[in-house]
Amino acid sequence: MTVSSTAARLFAELAEVSADAPGVTRASFGPGEAAAHAMIIREAKRIGLEHRTDPIGNLYVTLAGVDRNAPVLMTGSHLDSVPHGGNFDGAAGVLAGLELLERLAQGPTPPCDVTLIAIRAEEMIWFPEHYLGSRAAFGLLPPDTPDRVKRSDTGRSLADHMTEAGFDPQAIRNRQPQLDPANIRAFVEVHIEQGPVLVEENHPVGIVTSIRGNIRRRFASITGQTTHAGGVPRRSRHDAVLAGAELLAVLESYWIEVETAGEDMVLTIGQFATDASQHGITKVPGRVDFTLDVRSGSDATLDRFEQMLVKATTDIAARRKVKIELGPKTQAKAAHMDSDLYNSLSKAARAAQVPAMLLPSGGGHDCAVFAGLGVLSGMVFIRNTHGSHNPDEAMDLRDFQAACEVLHTWAQFELFQ
Amino acid sequence: MTVSSTAARLFAELAEVSADAPGVTRASFGPGEAAAHAMIIREAKRIGLEHRTDPIGNLYVTLAGVDRNAPVLMTGSHLDSVPHGGNFDGAAGVLAGLELLERLAQGPTPPCDVTLIAIRAEEMIWFPEHYLGSRAAFGLLPPDTPDRVKRSDTGRSLADHMTEAGFDPQAIRNRQPQLDPANIRAFVEVHIEQGPVLVEENHPVGIVTSIRGNIRRRFASITGQTTHAGGVPRRSRHDAVLAGAELLAVLESYWIEVETAGEDMVLTIGQFATDASQHGITKVPGRVDFTLDVRSGSDATLDRFEQMLVKATTDIAARRKVKIELGPKTQAKAAHMDSDLYNSLSKAARAAQVPAMLLPSGGGHDCAVFAGLGVLSGMVFIRNTHGSHNPDEAMDLRDFQAACEVLHTWAQFELFQ
Repeated sequence: MTVSSTAARLFAELAEVSADAPGVTRASFGPGEAAAHAMIIREAKRIGLEHRTDPIGNLYVTLAGVDRNAPVLMTGSHLDSVPHGGNFDGAAGVLAGLELLERLAQGPTPPCDVTLIAIRAEEMIWFPEHYLGSRAAFGLLPPDTPDRVKRSDTGRSLADHMTEAGFDPQAIRNRQPQLDPANIRAFVEVHIEQGPVLVEENHPVGIVTSIRGNIRRRFASITGQTTHAGGVPRRSRHDAVLAGAELLAVLESYWIEVETAGEDMVLTIGQFATDASQHGITKVPGRVDFTLDVRSGSDATLDRFEQMLVKATTDIAARRKVKIELGPKTQAKAAHMDSDLYNSLSKAARAAQVPAMLLPSGGGHDCAVFAGLGVLSGMVFIRNTHGSHNPDEAMDLRDFQAACEVLHTWAQFELFQ
Repeated sequence: MTVSSTAARLFAELAEVSADAPGVTRASFGPGEAAAHAMIIREAKRIGLEHRTDPIGNLYVTLAGVDRNAPVLMTGSHLDSVPHGGNFDGAAGVLAGLELLERLAQGPTPPCDVTLIAIRAEEMIWFPEHYLGSRAAFGLLPPDTPDRVKRSDTGRSLADHMTEAGFDPQAIRNRQPQLDPANIRAFVEVHIEQGPVLVEENHPVGIVTSIRGNIRRRFASITGQTTHAGGVPRRSRHDAVLAGAELLAVLESYWIEVETAGEDMVLTIGQFATDASQHGITKVPGRVDFTLDVRSGSDATLDRFEQMLVKATTDIAARRKVKIELGPKTQAKAAHMDSDLYNSLSKAARAAQVPAMLLPSGGGHDCAVFAGLGVLSGMVFIRNTHGSHNPDEAMDLRDFQAACEVLHTWAQFELFQ
């Protein structure tokens, strides 16, 4: 697979403009994301493509088709990253879309517009709202979102950050849609795989069959009583850490049961911490804060997990006389990719002689929003070592090129056959 | 019980000179501890008592007896505190000793010297070495201690801090004893109770029968692999938090077994924390750091706990493919108080009409060092609400006065009967 010199140049430029050792930082509505958007606009102009940015900040780059009113073929992904993340999560899909437009621009005019979308604010670590940019584009966010939701690093509101970046939070407050699902012929998102499956199975490319839904709680806590580690007998303790350990053991054993029953689920307690300023080796810990992230391809599995979680916490809290607060939850529904679409993506991979396999997506992606609205939606995963959301994320540019071939071949079929 | 105005004044002065809201901070070899020592020296002069400070910084205040060469009756405790601690842990025992000397000074000359010791550096949170000041006084510390052991807040060595405070680390390096166990007739330490037993049982005073030994590990950790919370299936995860939760559940269930078998033991995991700068809600946690503190009145129980701990960590590490490092351990042996001595303290309480009960000490105290060397040793606990090692520590001055009565009555019996 010959690697496009444009892609290599643009990935290098992206890494440079958002460098924040280790890795890159492209905060949602921050300077790294802005620099990435500016780069895509510059490239769109170089190729001679149309571009516009909506009031939310989402960028649309379009190759005009014969019928400007026909439903549009869309591709794209997001340009923000987690703090100290890798260079490829999100950006690979935008650059793959740019390469698609550049190649199509050299051929016959397509029957309809072909549009690349560079979506804002996908990484929930900044604003704790699922698929912020794409849901805003469809007018799906609750009207209070710009004023209610704060960025985790600054504590300032989404409205503040949007205004500062030159965009208009009023568009969200008014639930003003920027995109009409009925006007989208199909949407394909290219994205690096965030897990090890393609590496383990030795395939450069994967075709996604479903995107897991999830339920997240980022402010869960257990409050017991801080007391002396020597003087207080077991019966008089209200140890938050031991209560937490029991809760985690119960949740893990439920997870194993669910898996054994053949259901899809993953569970992550990414943070679980006593406060170093309050606790010490000789104090019974009176407080622990933790996060919960549970994902499944089945919304019913998530609902059953929730019921079990509430039951387990109630039981443990009563028995150990501690207070367990699960805090506010955010929820994203599971999304199923269209089988006709993933079969035609597989066919395109075969035609392009790119080894590809079908697989579910463990992580959430903006594509789930399109699918949830009934848009014909699909995803192409690119093999990637060391996972994503970390500086060691490593996508081989030859694998990126393989995904570009699949996308281009599929678009050719779709537009010209 | 009439409260001595001197004690009230001195407790208030102590709280003021070491105020560090919330609570007080008297770091080992820090300014708060120095101010407390200076206050005791000033009071010794006021009463007309002898005083000397040894090269380690321990202070000896003496009421001269008829026979200056006869074994000495000793009392005392420490003057340091944990950061943001309470005003009474340690200090109550020193002020009780001062009040004893002041009262004895008004009566007939005792047959032997009566000495109050104000011990340095008892709170292990500063220097992770059990009973630092009292073990140094007996020449028991390993010679490398001043250079090996660092203060937790500054990272600087004990030698540095001792020198800065005007003392001589060479005395520790030379294992030069400042006290001879053979020259101590008896040692009684007065201390607030650190647990709830006297409050629950409604006794102002307790007489201690034993001091628990302990094993501590302050730098234990589990290292797994940080990966994406969505993309990585359970079989490919090495989740440090879930491994830790299993370990804690195993340790707690062992603890319950030991208690059910009638053995004395308490277990505390005071800190258990993922690193907020490395981990997040959507990452499988690759590392957790924790502390372990296990205590028992029986050294054999501690030894068996150690064997179980090593077995459990080896098993969990192998099964979950994580690395569990328990880190360096410190150990203090259990100490048994002399039954003749605690019986005569009980007799003194009855004579002074102070309701008192026998109880074991859950926390460690310098008295264990005296007992370990064969000195006739005992402790008097003062009722205290909200436990110790926290700013809410609350000793009623009437209960302090009750303990002073017990100590004075016992000393009268010991010296003049």
